[in-house]
Amino acid sequence: MISKQQNIGRRQKELAAVMEKDGLAAIALVPGPSLRYLTGLGFMLTERPIIGVFTPSGPATMIVPDLERMKLDEAEFGLNAFNYGENPETWPGIFAEALGNIALTSGEIGVEELSIRLLELRILEDALPGITIKEADEIPATLRRRKDETELALMREAAKIAQGALESTTATLKIGMSEKEAAAELTSQLFRQGSGVELPFEPIVSTGLNSANPHALPSDRKLAEGDLLVIDFGATVDGYFSDITRTFAVGEVEEEFAKIHMIVQEANAAARAAVRPGTTCGEVDKAARDVIEHAGYGDYFIHRTGHGLGLEIHEEPYMRAGNDMVLEPGMTFTIEPGIYLPGRGGVRIEDDVAVIEDGIESFSDLPREMISIG
Amino acid sequence: MISKQQNIGRRQKELAAVMEKDGLAAIALVPGPSLRYLTGLGFMLTERPIIGVFTPSGPATMIVPDLERMKLDEAEFGLNAFNYGENPETWPGIFAEALGNIALTSGEIGVEELSIRLLELRILEDALPGITIKEADEIPATLRRRKDETELALMREAAKIAQGALESTTATLKIGMSEKEAAAELTSQLFRQGSGVELPFEPIVSTGLNSANPHALPSDRKLAEGDLLVIDFGATVDGYFSDITRTFAVGEVEEEFAKIHMIVQEANAAARAAVRPGTTCGEVDKAARDVIEHAGYGDYFIHRTGHGLGLEIHEEPYMRAGNDMVLEPGMTFTIEPGIYLPGRGGVRIEDDVAVIEDGIESFSDLPREMISIG
Repeated sequence: MISKQQNIGRRQKELAAVMEKDGLAAIALVPGPSLRYLTGLGFMLTERPIIGVFTPSGPATMIVPDLERMKLDEAEFGLNAFNYGENPETWPGIFAEALGNIALTSGEIGVEELSIRLLELRILEDALPGITIKEADEIPATLRRRKDETELALMREAAKIAQGALESTTATLKIGMSEKEAAAELTSQLFRQGSGVELPFEPIVSTGLNSANPHALPSDRKLAEGDLLVIDFGATVDGYFSDITRTFAVGEVEEEFAKIHMIVQEANAAARAAVRPGTTCGEVDKAARDVIEHAGYGDYFIHRTGHGLGLEIHEEPYMRAGNDMVLEPGMTFTIEPGIYLPGRGGVRIEDDVAVIEDGIESFSDLPREMISIG
Repeated sequence: MISKQQNIGRRQKELAAVMEKDGLAAIALVPGPSLRYLTGLGFMLTERPIIGVFTPSGPATMIVPDLERMKLDEAEFGLNAFNYGENPETWPGIFAEALGNIALTSGEIGVEELSIRLLELRILEDALPGITIKEADEIPATLRRRKDETELALMREAAKIAQGALESTTATLKIGMSEKEAAAELTSQLFRQGSGVELPFEPIVSTGLNSANPHALPSDRKLAEGDLLVIDFGATVDGYFSDITRTFAVGEVEEEFAKIHMIVQEANAAARAAVRPGTTCGEVDKAARDVIEHAGYGDYFIHRTGHGLGLEIHEEPYMRAGNDMVLEPGMTFTIEPGIYLPGRGGVRIEDDVAVIEDGIESFSDLPREMISIG
């Protein structure tokens, strides 16, 4: 069993090596998935700025409000901590002291353009006048792409909770219940079964023609005999997400619905069978897409086959046509082919998987064949 | 009954008037509470940039990914819409066209430094070379400070859902249950009773010595005879939050706990009695603080009396010592005095209120006296 402490240390060391190689003087992160990955600590992005600075050598520097100071006691790595009080006029002085302490006088400091705000940019610019700010989103993303054992265990648990919640929910579904009612029951079950409060996204429960829209929000439409029912949702454990979809028949459905369900099931299986170290993301997408195209439904598979999953609901690697990123052990992502017949209904079957030395581990294992409910 | 459409139009007109007065050429907003307030539309901050630009005259410009295009169909105001596809290389051209179309060639464009990221800043800088970017967080904040009837109705509903969830939860609490179990039950009840998925914050259920920490997270500690039990939580309706606290006795509690509960109850009542148009925020804080200080517990009331509440869980106006902001009808905030005895236990009683012409409306009305559970 690898302890969390060893993982945080290893992650920071890997970051240091990349900074050294890229010639960066430092990387400055604000609250978000990358800071959580590198520190094991969960901070929120609020009106009180929080910055973590990492350099190729020496301990991390964390600047946080007094209110959040206690969280730093849980840090399992060496750090220089700086805290500030409630009066914003005192903040520039604290940040100048903290950042001055790192002794950065020239060179480039990497930031994530998808996270850092004008608030923190101005702080860095004011405190580090000789430094150039550079977009470096790719550096933490590359480290985070290969999950370690601690992360895989959390993702397994997130899938397990989601599966339990779905099973408890489907037992209560019946004709006449609305999509919103079903979604409320599912959400409620996610928390009963141990999900963290910050769900990856609002659960999708879509029936009939709504199920033909992959991003439909739950409506007042009622489950009706003959409908397809798509349920797409996930749980959260310590910041790590699951994201699972199953498609059900409400009562008996027309023949073509059963047929497209079988095709999607085969496409899902083909993509999973393609996953192993050395395969490209594009090949995984192609495995699913070929099955659907050969069956004559290529025009109705309107999205990529999957996306990376972890501390973010969409992250690298992306299973899309032409992506030549090569799969490596520890990469985690969804496999979610679908067929959508406009105005009629849709099918999607989504699993969460990890690349392992031998091929694939699927975190989700609920039955994939079409089950009738109601 | 004022329709949502009229409100969105009025909000955009008020914004235009402030821009005119301040000499701003435009305001550019990214997904967040202010964009939601000004458009009635809910977008997410993701890797795909979304920008809404408002000018003193002329319609709003919204630039969104194709995936989110459908949301613009719900817009109840005139706008120029621009969309982009999945290939990031095409984005700069679309943004240049959209922003060029507004014909901004000089002057200042206001942004919110607490929301806008480097991603969107670079887009604005590249597409509008003659324009200076200026922090203007205060402009939307000032508009949002006075809630209109649509907003007040949503906040009433958010309080009602939270109160229902608490009543259902307290009926199930018993000695031996853990804080985490109680929090899971409460979260589950919030969704059963109709809360939106994005809760204002993770519910706080803290017992015994944990209740002396105002920001305690639910732990495995079990409810035990003689404990104080603080439950602090909220629901969400269309983006608007509630934030309510009640403190219970587990079985029978020692005399001093009952005494501090009574003092906090009086402090809460005194602050509510002070709320009316023309009073300052500082006076509301003082009303609560005086009660607690006169009772000899001033050193144990370690936070402000309340914070503004709406589309954000912390926003203006803040009920803190010395704040001379004057209350106006439509302002909404919490009243939440507390007494915390380190290592022993704490009491907090929190209501959500609005300033009205006559004085105050409290959205929350659950009993404030100490109730014994378990």
